[in-house]
Amino acid sequence: MCRWIAYRGETIPLEQYVTAPAHSLVVQSQRALESTASTNGDGFGTGWYGEHPEPGLYREIRPAWSDENLRYLCRHIRSHLYFAHVRAATGTPITRPNCHPFACGRWLFMHNGVIGNWSRLRRKVEAMIPDEIYGSRIGTTDSEAVFLAILGAGGDKDPVGATTRLLATLTDMVSSKGYREPLRFTAALTNGSDLFAFRFAANDNANSLYYRESGGNVVVVSEPLDAERAQWKPVPNGHVLMAEAGKPVSLQPILAASRVAAE
Amino acid sequence: MCRWIAYRGETIPLEQYVTAPAHSLVVQSQRALESTASTNGDGFGTGWYGEHPEPGLYREIRPAWSDENLRYLCRHIRSHLYFAHVRAATGTPITRPNCHPFACGRWLFMHNGVIGNWSRLRRKVEAMIPDEIYGSRIGTTDSEAVFLAILGAGGDKDPVGATTRLLATLTDMVSSKGYREPLRFTAALTNGSDLFAFRFAANDNANSLYYRESGGNVVVVSEPLDAERAQWKPVPNGHVLMAEAGKPVSLQPILAASRVAAE
Amino acid sequence: MCRWIAYRGETIPLEQYVTAPAHSLVVQSQRALESTASTNGDGFGTGWYGEHPEPGLYREIRPAWSDENLRYLCRHIRSHLYFAHVRAATGTPITRPNCHPFACGRWLFMHNGVIGNWSRLRRKVEAMIPDEIYGSRIGTTDSEAVFLAILGAGGDKDPVGATTRLLATLTDMVSSKGYREPLRFTAALTNGSDLFAFRFAANDNANSLYYRESGGNVVVVSEPLDAERAQWKPVPNGHVLMAEAGKPVSLQPILAASRVAAE
Amino acid sequence: MCRWIAYRGETIPLEQYVTAPAHSLVVQSQRALESTASTNGDGFGTGWYGEHPEPGLYREIRPAWSDENLRYLCRHIRSHLYFAHVRAATGTPITRPNCHPFACGRWLFMHNGVIGNWSRLRRKVEAMIPDEIYGSRIGTTDSEAVFLAILGAGGDKDPVGATTRLLATLTDMVSSKGYREPLRFTAALTNGSDLFAFRFAANDNANSLYYRESGGNVVVVSEPLDAERAQWKPVPNGHVLMAEAGKPVSLQPILAASRVAAE
Repeated sequence: MCRWIAYRGETIPLEQYVTAPAHSLVVQSQRALESTASTNGDGFGTGWYGEHPEPGLYREIRPAWSDENLRYLCRHIRSHLYFAHVRAATGTPITRPNCHPFACGRWLFMHNGVIGNWSRLRRKVEAMIPDEIYGSRIGTTDSEAVFLAILGAGGDKDPVGATTRLLATLTDMVSSKGYREPLRFTAALTNGSDLFAFRFAANDNANSLYYRESGGNVVVVSEPLDAERAQWKPVPNGHVLMAEAGKPVSLQPILAASRVAAE
Repeated sequence: MCRWIAYRGETIPLEQYVTAPAHSLVVQSQRALESTASTNGDGFGTGWYGEHPEPGLYREIRPAWSDENLRYLCRHIRSHLYFAHVRAATGTPITRPNCHPFACGRWLFMHNGVIGNWSRLRRKVEAMIPDEIYGSRIGTTDSEAVFLAILGAGGDKDPVGATTRLLATLTDMVSSKGYREPLRFTAALTNGSDLFAFRFAANDNANSLYYRESGGNVVVVSEPLDAERAQWKPVPNGHVLMAEAGKPVSLQPILAASRVAAE
Repeated sequence: MCRWIAYRGETIPLEQYVTAPAHSLVVQSQRALESTASTNGDGFGTGWYGEHPEPGLYREIRPAWSDENLRYLCRHIRSHLYFAHVRAATGTPITRPNCHPFACGRWLFMHNGVIGNWSRLRRKVEAMIPDEIYGSRIGTTDSEAVFLAILGAGGDKDPVGATTRLLATLTDMVSSKGYREPLRFTAALTNGSDLFAFRFAANDNANSLYYRESGGNVVVVSEPLDAERAQWKPVPNGHVLMAEAGKPVSLQPILAASRVAAE
Repeated sequence: MCRWIAYRGETIPLEQYVTAPAHSLVVQSQRALESTASTNGDGFGTGWYGEHPEPGLYREIRPAWSDENLRYLCRHIRSHLYFAHVRAATGTPITRPNCHPFACGRWLFMHNGVIGNWSRLRRKVEAMIPDEIYGSRIGTTDSEAVFLAILGAGGDKDPVGATTRLLATLTDMVSSKGYREPLRFTAALTNGSDLFAFRFAANDNANSLYYRESGGNVVVVSEPLDAERAQWKPVPNGHVLMAEAGKPVSLQPILAASRVAAE
């Protein structure tokens, strides 16, 4: 089980959420609290937007807690929208292409969760990636395959709709023909302007997801970055948080209640 | 274009061919002679057989020439059958799972060449990997996909036949419907007992491949390890070299002459 | 605080203690029990003796728990005397030359502990390394400096005496002129034939150290490898365990009681 | 022999000199032209200044040519003063702390050359580093030791004077008592505002160093970045190039002619 943060708001240095807080993401890489895996030492990554339309990406296979490059970059890189992720691998190798976030054109995606019995579903999900996007499959994770399948389902034009449709399909897959495999999906998706953060589960409890909003800035996190718990609101299971240009942050249910497992 | 060596014979330390010769594989990693890529610094690997039925594997993303671990291991590990490979990547990421050799059960495989326009053929070749073997696809290279497709074509029982059938299929693919893409395949395959080394090309010249035999020991190489050129005999294009338990080393043509491109 | 194991006895695969036990060293890399640092993910290493008079060495900066090379090597390398170490760094960078064990000629050394205020003592300890050995200082850790200082103090001919003299000097240093800095030293030293394991502390409690003996084989560990606690005997503080060719394993006090801090 | 570039001028993305030109530094990592080592694949680094008074740093042990992170960072990081360096190691290990540039407080330094017989001189040069700076010696290279010795000689207040004094001392060392060891020093030093680039040799020819100036921007390089050779002027041996705030770029001899070896 991984940990991640996503930020959208005023331009700030990455360090403000990645390395500086008492319970920063880098601290969580060594000692997470709301996770079955207390150590998230199987690589990490950060993606951010600046003047270039496509995001920057820094991914490494070492633990985040000991990477001196990460500390320098988080101090020097400033962004209005960035992702950071520390990984606890669940089967796929520790390689840079298997570290989150994943980039494809303008889009960034990162994920914490599990996609059923991946060895059973892998070919089915990979088949949902259109040929013209399949060249972007440079790693072997379930998360990257789901990201490219979302884009293949029209995510570029309708990110929430495409993600919802894919989650419906995945829910069917993990529950079909007597299967009852866990599907847990807490993920962030962005095109550099709008941020979407999903919390969903089928056949299992949802992984934790919180957000904090202040003055037009929003930060979404797997677990709170400090002890001020009152400021961190949970994203309800089966919901998407939307932080779009020129609109207030909003929450919206993403699948009919009947599909959504009890939290 | 990569460089590799394969050895079968008396038990010797790996260093005898990997690091010791004047033009050893490690020297070739920095300065190859018969290759379009003079530098093979995109990772390396070695695989070997000992008392355990499955091979050992050491693969790294650093250049072979500066890896101190490799020097220690080549001095200390002894084997009767081993592979070593230095990589010049042609598009897929520099990760350990993308370094040769590849292992699956008792089998080892490594490759130097090109499989047509991989972005066009990738899904077709991946589709040839049976479901029960697909879990062994932990990387993203063309070479690993071809290896698993060979095993899927019956390589475990008939390695030469399965490889030949797959090469016939690949030759059709790279020449179908007006396509004329290069297929170059110099590869080694072993089950820990028998060694098979292939040299084949379609729509292009074959990559170089040599062997040296003495007293029941055979070493197969992308390019000679020393200046004693007379001792190194070329493996002819369109042939497989077979070094099997209890038999003399032999060469055999693998596809009808009509299929084989001129060397 | 690091974790390590040292083995001397019949020739066995490394995996017997490094990866196979319920609470193996690799398990301890992710979840140690008797250590202030529960995660030992700042690199690792193993050193072993085979037919070559000098030891083999495999050291990596990744966590041991996710290194596929380590699993292959531990299955295939067999030795009558080997060390393995997982690191929790305390200030010096995560580099291969800073990973234990350290090799110099026939000798291997590894350490778990702290050498006072290292930034104050570093130059003093480095000055104890003779010029002819200083070229072997390829890293920057306190542990490597202490190892080379032991060899400089005559460790090659009298390992226990040289180590004891150095510990006396270090004890003076950490307690001189009103200083009262912790010195904790649990370390293993070998020439490929004889194994010496030290447990010592001044101004602090000693780090844990246990051993298990059976049929001429001895394994020394930072913490027990399984739940059979009765079989694991502590090495008393201020003692060296000696496992020498042709002699029974013995324990011996190494510094006069007055010097040794209460355990 | 390494390759490097230093830039001072308008704020631009790093890619303008590191990755974009026909013969960019990244191209030189695989195929340098004016160097005895055509491959500079033993790690690399970049350092740059932004809003923070201390520089950012990204250093890696992989070859620059295959590092996807470097390409992202060079596209996204913008700076008015930056260094980049690709390494061909000459004895010290391939570790991040041994990659150039080196940082200490506000200062950055990088080097291409050789400091006599380093195993003979190492302790003498390390002894020139003051205690209060010695904690910044986190690697083991000759270059880092020389950098810290320059700061120890007053480099913070008088960078050219301190460097010149150190070069005089080093020249004496490599020529003392019948020794005649090569000293080659092409190096760049900066505090984030002023850039100093040195070209010097004793007992040997100087390594190549060029610069190009246009409209207040200056770039200093080991070898030209494109085929427009007329635009690249050599820095003469025994000179320092100075690019200081509010002053035109100037060249100045740094040691009396009698000391300077013929070019």
